[in-house]
Amino acid sequence: MESVITIVGHAAIDLLFDVENIAVHDESQPITEYHEYFGGGAANIAIGIARLGGSCQLIAAVGGDFSSSGYEKELQDHRVDLSLLYRYPDEKCTRAFVFTDREHRQSTYFDWGASVHLQELEAPTIDFVHLATSDSTFNARVAKKARFVSFDPGQDLITYSREKLESILENTNILFTNRHEIQRVCDMTGKSFEEILCMIDTVVVTYDARGSVIHHAGEVINIPIVPVKALDPTGAGDAYRAGFLLAFTRNFPLETCGRIGATVASFAVQSIGCQTDLPSWEKMKDRYEEHFGKLKGPD
Amino acid sequence: MESVITIVGHAAIDLLFDVENIAVHDESQPITEYHEYFGGGAANIAIGIARLGGSCQLIAAVGGDFSSSGYEKELQDHRVDLSLLYRYPDEKCTRAFVFTDREHRQSTYFDWGASVHLQELEAPTIDFVHLATSDSTFNARVAKKARFVSFDPGQDLITYSREKLESILENTNILFTNRHEIQRVCDMTGKSFEEILCMIDTVVVTYDARGSVIHHAGEVINIPIVPVKALDPTGAGDAYRAGFLLAFTRNFPLETCGRIGATVASFAVQSIGCQTDLPSWEKMKDRYEEHFGKLKGPD
Repeated sequence: MESVITIVGHAAIDLLFDVENIAVHDESQPITEYHEYFGGGAANIAIGIARLGGSCQLIAAVGGDFSSSGYEKELQDHRVDLSLLYRYPDEKCTRAFVFTDREHRQSTYFDWGASVHLQELEAPTIDFVHLATSDSTFNARVAKKARFVSFDPGQDLITYSREKLESILENTNILFTNRHEIQRVCDMTGKSFEEILCMIDTVVVTYDARGSVIHHAGEVINIPIVPVKALDPTGAGDAYRAGFLLAFTRNFPLETCGRIGATVASFAVQSIGCQTDLPSWEKMKDRYEEHFGKLKGPD
Repeated sequence: MESVITIVGHAAIDLLFDVENIAVHDESQPITEYHEYFGGGAANIAIGIARLGGSCQLIAAVGGDFSSSGYEKELQDHRVDLSLLYRYPDEKCTRAFVFTDREHRQSTYFDWGASVHLQELEAPTIDFVHLATSDSTFNARVAKKARFVSFDPGQDLITYSREKLESILENTNILFTNRHEIQRVCDMTGKSFEEILCMIDTVVVTYDARGSVIHHAGEVINIPIVPVKALDPTGAGDAYRAGFLLAFTRNFPLETCGRIGATVASFAVQSIGCQTDLPSWEKMKDRYEEHFGKLKGPD
């Protein structure tokens, strides 16, 4: 039986606005266009895995608008297991309001909504978990009880205390960061990059357009990006992790996991929103083979 | 039979956010709290009149979210006549997103939504109309065909061409402006304030905390504000116009119309949002009599 991947983090609703100019103090600016998108790192990854045909479960705290917005149905339609969701019907889902001007400068407001409750919650026992950006206390509790932990602190790194970060890292099997975050992990823990590599089985560092690098057992595996006409970089990282993690649980070699991640990410950047245009396994496989040659079966 | 007051303008949905700081370029700021409110000048006035027991009709262009947001039901519950609404189910209602920081500085984004269609529409023939902020072309068409016109160009004054403004003013029986707007009306038309007064039966100029002044047939009537603990000034002007217009159609003397307007406005500023806490005629009358003495019946 294929293993279930549990993703912990946010199911957020994003409002993305195109505006003439960013409105500063006591200013009013017209909106050119705006749309609501379903997002949140954890939910993006869950949808990505489900689209590829994997089994996954989402653990997040959601508000009353989770159902009324259509987000619940969207996840159910993808057969994401929602049985461990924390539901707060009187609160709102985590939301981001992102204003982008004509020069692509952004101004963002975010509301944690129901996710503020995560810090109070007991952690469930999970077999294979990916910890996306979320409450650091809850993530640390989950990491302690899980068999296998994949961890992506993301921009929330600044909210972790040294103790919490170290406690999660001690339980982490795969660490995902970008080049700035890995530096910060070193700074916060007082460890060198080499010490981090000794501590954690697999460390994946992403470098935007330059691709990603997988560090495992002294090996350094370079994964190039799959070049496409990029429209919106948002969600590329989540798509990469969805592809990587599903391939990993399907026992593909690490290099193939990275290449599958890069291939899934190339779909995400082609359209606006984080969950639009994510590929099926077949579509992923076609593009993978165009770029990397035959996708060999798992070991 | 009591006459129906028709209000032309926006039924808008406002999202009001309390934030730590206004997010400038490439910044992300947390939201402390946010709520959705039903607003839009025309709808605010319609609700105000309905709450006071008057008969009114709203003419506005609305999107699909007019119904799903609960706004339609809210107006129906107040028995506002919606039979002349322009409905665009595939578009959105006019919306404003207003961010207020701890120092009460604001940053606003607005979207015209379905209201962009007003400029294309034929005007209906109306007996007694109040033109709230709206599309200047549509307002000019309505003014030409109506028997009695009350006009409040508000902050949209800058969108009027000189021709459109003059064409509406020629048909206007009551003009509402604040002290900045009346100056701008003079500048735009090249007329002195005295010339405007000769042209228009009744001109009402509001001066924020200093109250309002009614100019009619050479008479100058000063209306003080009704002092209360003010929480949110938004909607005070709309509440004033609701009280004034209903009293006017009920044939109260102009001074009483202004005092009733000031009394209704004092309710609006007591709570957040434009349509919350608006009074019934009885509640208005009680407060009126506390401040101005016995409310005498119409002439």
